[in-house]
Amino acid sequence: MASVPRGDYAILNEDDVKHFAGILAPTSIVSSLPPFNHPQSDLDTYNNDWMGKYFGHSKLVLKPKTTAEVSAIMKHCYARKLAVVPQGGNTGLVGGSVPANDEVVLSLANMSNVRSFDSMSGILVAEAGCILENLSNYLAPHSHIIPLDLGAKGSCQIGGNIATNAGGLRVLRYGSLHGSVLGLEVVLPNGEILDQLSILRKDNTGYDLKQLFIGAEGSLGIITAASIHCPPAPRAQQNLVLALPSFSKLPEVFKLAKTHLSEVLSAFELFDREAYDMVSHHTGKRGLDEGEIGDSECFVLIETSGGRSEHDEEKLSSLLEILYETTSTSSPLIKSGVLSQSADQFQSLWSLREGIPEAAGKTGKVYKYDISVPVREFMNVTNSVRKRLQEKGLYRSGKDSRISYVMGYGHVGDGNLHINVVADTYSQEIEDTLEPFIFEVVQSHKGSISAEHGLGLMKTQHLHYSKGQISRDWMRRVKLLFDDKGIMNPGKVIAV
Amino acid sequence: MASVPRGDYAILNEDDVKHFAGILAPTSIVSSLPPFNHPQSDLDTYNNDWMGKYFGHSKLVLKPKTTAEVSAIMKHCYARKLAVVPQGGNTGLVGGSVPANDEVVLSLANMSNVRSFDSMSGILVAEAGCILENLSNYLAPHSHIIPLDLGAKGSCQIGGNIATNAGGLRVLRYGSLHGSVLGLEVVLPNGEILDQLSILRKDNTGYDLKQLFIGAEGSLGIITAASIHCPPAPRAQQNLVLALPSFSKLPEVFKLAKTHLSEVLSAFELFDREAYDMVSHHTGKRGLDEGEIGDSECFVLIETSGGRSEHDEEKLSSLLEILYETTSTSSPLIKSGVLSQSADQFQSLWSLREGIPEAAGKTGKVYKYDISVPVREFMNVTNSVRKRLQEKGLYRSGKDSRISYVMGYGHVGDGNLHINVVADTYSQEIEDTLEPFIFEVVQSHKGSISAEHGLGLMKTQHLHYSKGQISRDWMRRVKLLFDDKGIMNPGKVIAV
Repeated sequence: MASVPRGDYAILNEDDVKHFAGILAPTSIVSSLPPFNHPQSDLDTYNNDWMGKYFGHSKLVLKPKTTAEVSAIMKHCYARKLAVVPQGGNTGLVGGSVPANDEVVLSLANMSNVRSFDSMSGILVAEAGCILENLSNYLAPHSHIIPLDLGAKGSCQIGGNIATNAGGLRVLRYGSLHGSVLGLEVVLPNGEILDQLSILRKDNTGYDLKQLFIGAEGSLGIITAASIHCPPAPRAQQNLVLALPSFSKLPEVFKLAKTHLSEVLSAFELFDREAYDMVSHHTGKRGLDEGEIGDSECFVLIETSGGRSEHDEEKLSSLLEILYETTSTSSPLIKSGVLSQSADQFQSLWSLREGIPEAAGKTGKVYKYDISVPVREFMNVTNSVRKRLQEKGLYRSGKDSRISYVMGYGHVGDGNLHINVVADTYSQEIEDTLEPFIFEVVQSHKGSISAEHGLGLMKTQHLHYSKGQISRDWMRRVKLLFDDKGIMNPGKVIAV
Repeated sequence: MASVPRGDYAILNEDDVKHFAGILAPTSIVSSLPPFNHPQSDLDTYNNDWMGKYFGHSKLVLKPKTTAEVSAIMKHCYARKLAVVPQGGNTGLVGGSVPANDEVVLSLANMSNVRSFDSMSGILVAEAGCILENLSNYLAPHSHIIPLDLGAKGSCQIGGNIATNAGGLRVLRYGSLHGSVLGLEVVLPNGEILDQLSILRKDNTGYDLKQLFIGAEGSLGIITAASIHCPPAPRAQQNLVLALPSFSKLPEVFKLAKTHLSEVLSAFELFDREAYDMVSHHTGKRGLDEGEIGDSECFVLIETSGGRSEHDEEKLSSLLEILYETTSTSSPLIKSGVLSQSADQFQSLWSLREGIPEAAGKTGKVYKYDISVPVREFMNVTNSVRKRLQEKGLYRSGKDSRISYVMGYGHVGDGNLHINVVADTYSQEIEDTLEPFIFEVVQSHKGSISAEHGLGLMKTQHLHYSKGQISRDWMRRVKLLFDDKGIMNPGKVIAV
């Protein structure tokens, strides 16, 4: 992993910590420096990521409770040129929320109030530290949902979701956060509070500055609150898992699903045979009939969300009928299809897909690549990674292969492929085999090296594979406009 | 109307025109200067807006055919400090696309190619000068639609739509352009080409700079092409018009519609009694039974777009049944409801709502206000305008009233109200009565003085009613970052 050179920002001292102690309650500070002298290990969960891949060595964690406190902290950091890492649930996969060196960690965990919700307009105003699942639970009695759902929902925070422009399972239906976030409150590096917390669905008064902070990974300012357009909760949900004899059938299956399910289609997810086998192995369950699936190359999970279950069921049943009847190049489109018949089965079909990251994490150390490439290239790209690792003797080349699984899965509706490589341990040899190889493959397809995860420490130095010189130059100018001292989340997004 | 002081930019001369003649084909230039010497009246359609409200006096219109030509033009303008107004279909309502003074007009009309369309992903790449309706027609055989529809579709251009973040009738269903525009190609004031023409649904590689140009009204750069996520075409559409005895019933009707139509709801439009009466008077037709509607205070048009007409019909019929049966504070929610039974009736019900701007324009000179306020305030805000005009003796105060109609209508689903004031002529007295009065009312509700139309020459000086000092300061810095010489569309969006 490339280390990030420590910039010329100031070194935190006892006086700084005392200054912060004058702003925040003592319970809002964790520091190994005097006057607190907490054991350094108390800072481990803030310094390290959950995958055990990225390690910072900050000596101070601040957990403000109000926007005014965040502003006061940043004013001091700006005056002193102290570098700062804003941190949400620290559930990221690219090391975007851990310090690269000894930055101050500013945790939003204590800002977790819902400020307002209007059930007529569906507009929610929530502070950055609200945990995604808590917001979902808050909205449930109002029959609304957050337009965002992802595996980490139990611990990720909405501010972090927005700062990383998190994607997840609902993008196909509800679009990206650039559309559903209506307003943001942001504390800028100099401590100014940029109040763009509009609760209006439409507002064309000047430049939409808040958009810059969506996906900026905390490198331009700190999101302290957000206003989000929340859709009405669907009153019925069903799903369907299909086994496809060959990946080549996917485009036709996707087209038919879009046509026949149209407005009720809410997810169209792909996972390849190796992912299916690993999850089955891990859970001891197989979701589909062994005999029927035979040597199927990949699997599709389709979800519908709608207002009337009988209508959705009719649409799904007709789709399944058509899929069984249709052939392409004289072979059937699918080998098998299972339609959920109960809430339990709905969950267990979803777990075939949602269980992949967990099963991978429990099997070994996981290299995660999150890319956008044309859907028709999903299998080619995954196979090229397998081939590369095999050639280097790292995968399926004898009993001692260091890599047990190479899996391709993702969101077909969004052209977003996840490649997970499960190794016995993180090693430079494996990393050098995978990178920049995968990024070069992505570049050759004019794809994105980060579809929904962000750049973080992992990919900031690889930005040129997806963005040209002129774009990078303007990003750098925007960074320096808002963060002229370069104190916000150094080493992430763009090097200055 | 406030005039915009001419900045210290250069005065166009014969040498400039000759320089441009070396870049563009002679048919791409209209100029009253030598060597062209076209009559100045040839430039009228570029200098003036269609409402007859804003008048510029440019002596040069350039109509490049390629991005390279746009870049070459801007390089010269930047070097010479010549001011430029980018112009699409010039269908705007706020004077954003006409020169404030003698700026060069850069028309995108000759850049009207579709570069690509992928029917699997639904992603369209089109040049800025494509007329919106032409794009709709292009997509029809591919069973997709543009996620944008507005009255001016026959002449507005997609580049102008994006530059003004146009809203229209499909925002409720498909969200704003900030979500559906996936990429932009922009020529910057210095002539650099910022290529962010991504065709990826998800791309988290660095700052999403393209967002800044959506809604910037051409004041940061010139959009030359866009990549747009286009949804599958609905296979069935129906509508329903309701007469509400009182505006107070609206919130309950809206909630019931959202619940019972859920994913098929594609429009929820309001128009008040005065708008209904004016359209009826203008067209000589009434959409609903006179006896049934009685003294109804306002009307609602609901549209559904879905995949199966029988499902949508069932949902609409149940909604109508429920609306007839439900009472609130012991009086019925609706007086009358008409469900379209044919394509013709579908059109004629829509024309009750879509016919308002046209009928207003044919009745007199129209002051148009496009605001976001909480839906429950729609009627109060419209009535406060009526009261104000009445007190000044301009409306319903004797036979000579200068104002014949004050109408409130708009997109309830988006909290977007249009107030149209129909006068015998544009006059300073009427304008001074309406402005800043309406903007102050909007400010008191923390609303937006421009929901979907933009600021243009009309509202740039009123920006402070919707945006605070810190936001305006940062907008100004962003403007100066991209347009350090202030040559792009001067007098629009933000004064520098």
